[in-house]
Amino acid sequence: MKQQTEKKNIMDYDTVRLDEEASAVVILDQTRLPGVIEEISLRSAEELYEAIYLLKVRGAPAIGVAAAFGIYVLAKQIEALDPDAFYREFTRLKEYLESARPTAVNLSWALNRMQRVAFSHRGKATVDVVAHLKEEAVAIWQEDIDVCKKIGEYGLSLVKPGDGILTHCNAGQLATSRYGTATAPIYLGQERGYHFRVFADETRPLLQGARLTAYELMASGVDVTLICDNMSGAVMKNGWVDAVFVGCDRVAANGDTANKIGTSVVAAVAKYYGIPVYVCAPTSTIDPDTPDGAAIRIEQRPAEEVTEMWYRRRMAPEGVKVYNPAFDVTDHALIAGIVTEYGIARAPYEISLAKLKGMAE
Amino acid sequence: MKQQTEKKNIMDYDTVRLDEEASAVVILDQTRLPGVIEEISLRSAEELYEAIYLLKVRGAPAIGVAAAFGIYVLAKQIEALDPDAFYREFTRLKEYLESARPTAVNLSWALNRMQRVAFSHRGKATVDVVAHLKEEAVAIWQEDIDVCKKIGEYGLSLVKPGDGILTHCNAGQLATSRYGTATAPIYLGQERGYHFRVFADETRPLLQGARLTAYELMASGVDVTLICDNMSGAVMKNGWVDAVFVGCDRVAANGDTANKIGTSVVAAVAKYYGIPVYVCAPTSTIDPDTPDGAAIRIEQRPAEEVTEMWYRRRMAPEGVKVYNPAFDVTDHALIAGIVTEYGIARAPYEISLAKLKGMAE
Repeated sequence: MKQQTEKKNIMDYDTVRLDEEASAVVILDQTRLPGVIEEISLRSAEELYEAIYLLKVRGAPAIGVAAAFGIYVLAKQIEALDPDAFYREFTRLKEYLESARPTAVNLSWALNRMQRVAFSHRGKATVDVVAHLKEEAVAIWQEDIDVCKKIGEYGLSLVKPGDGILTHCNAGQLATSRYGTATAPIYLGQERGYHFRVFADETRPLLQGARLTAYELMASGVDVTLICDNMSGAVMKNGWVDAVFVGCDRVAANGDTANKIGTSVVAAVAKYYGIPVYVCAPTSTIDPDTPDGAAIRIEQRPAEEVTEMWYRRRMAPEGVKVYNPAFDVTDHALIAGIVTEYGIARAPYEISLAKLKGMAE
Repeated sequence: MKQQTEKKNIMDYDTVRLDEEASAVVILDQTRLPGVIEEISLRSAEELYEAIYLLKVRGAPAIGVAAAFGIYVLAKQIEALDPDAFYREFTRLKEYLESARPTAVNLSWALNRMQRVAFSHRGKATVDVVAHLKEEAVAIWQEDIDVCKKIGEYGLSLVKPGDGILTHCNAGQLATSRYGTATAPIYLGQERGYHFRVFADETRPLLQGARLTAYELMASGVDVTLICDNMSGAVMKNGWVDAVFVGCDRVAANGDTANKIGTSVVAAVAKYYGIPVYVCAPTSTIDPDTPDGAAIRIEQRPAEEVTEMWYRRRMAPEGVKVYNPAFDVTDHALIAGIVTEYGIARAPYEISLAKLKGMAE
């Protein structure tokens, strides 16, 4: 079942919801935003796997919720002659869904929670086990909303009205059930008249920042400016950013954090400019079994995402504010040497460049 | 006159050349690469202005050469009744071309050189003045080649065989008359069997790294890997980069350097990973009249470059190697706090995260 519209506000949709009557997980297809708002219903294991792998549903918390609803819907459909067969099939389906994406811990976290519930009711009638699975999936969904709201409150305490906030990728409502993680302080601030000025990195290659973050913030009336990923240095140097808020896919025990490619770039640049970086992380994304970043498996994706512009329609919402300087300035303190036809200039440049310039005249 | 082909090696073309017979500046149209190799002939002031503004010819040195050839071709065509009228028209044309792009100093540098030559021969017959202009333009073109080769030699002394080199945007042959600036050490190393592994930032929004740098390096047999701009942190963290070479559009007296947007991001990230950044700068790009970066006028370009993928064909050469991790790891040392529903974790994270995780259980 597909449902299309281009009229309703994106914020009125659920990122992920359960359609009990149709025995389906209904998601907003995020690969078609911002051009088309389309809900798609996922019923089979293959449909669920594909939706996660192709990023039709994405964002660590949303993936967790979709997987929880998904394994419930699949469990309902298992036709097994005996409990052993049911649990074997349940485990097979769980492991299949889990393999769709390796980096975000929420996928296995949610599926493990569901599996624990299933096995803890072993011995009961299948219909009862399935009922408990539904309860757990709904709890995961509801907790996600509560968690995001709380993250928003704590995050809001770190900033002040009028602040400039930079965010990378989409850790927004579209990445969760509601509020988002990195955007939660922004949405709460918006409700309370904080008038943040938000900068959204477009986030190559799949442009989640341009297509999703800029889109949902605009739809909520937030003052958002879209930038290319390589413009973060310019906006920070301009003094426009007071804090960076990002989401995460997995936080290791020592605090090393895996998040969308480019997060470490934003963090290093923010460090250089003395701007604090805050990682917004539901505890479900903290993985005590991962000692540090080196132990996190990083998903590699197809070259075509970089070499072909996969999204052939508009890449950002109509009318979005864009900051698009053609150049930026690198402080001389960052330059180890300037290579000219007369040699290599090194700091102090006033002296070395004048000398080289003199040789050229 | 347009000449199209998709067969010859890109390295066999001149980025900019003078077609004396046709009284035209012939350029490779860089907005159509890598899909189509097309030379276009520029005869009028408007065609020259547009070619520079639309980046059909780009790269500080190449812009300088195109402007020098261009003002010569235009001077040849001036129909003036007396010397005063000739010089008035010459100056008008010079100032018009100069206004096409504000940041690269080479444009005004080359045009000022041409103007000085023109005025130094005041009193002579127009045909003689024009002959001197041709001489000067050819000298600027020839010097560009020599300068790039020397930059290559000095640059090469900074690295060793097998090194990993990262570059941003295109300061390659396509940005100059030959060799490029940032690519000159790479090309010389290639001739001498250095076997560099080169990483080319794609360079949003106009993708000069994907379309031009990856293209020309591949065509020259260099081992080049294309990355999105936000992947520089990941490749540096992996230990794959020993040095960064970039070009520049203007170097201020104190060494502050204006270069393609994102250069300061690469520099800050390289600093964090302890990797040296070398700016390859012909002395023509050093501007003693600009005290520091704050005094450099930064060109702002249309939003559509960011919101629409302007280049609807392939964005990178066929078969280019791509590194496309979906995530990267941010060291905990870079994270000022991790916001959870139970509070904000701060370093040392082993303690604060375990505590928060405990509260969640």
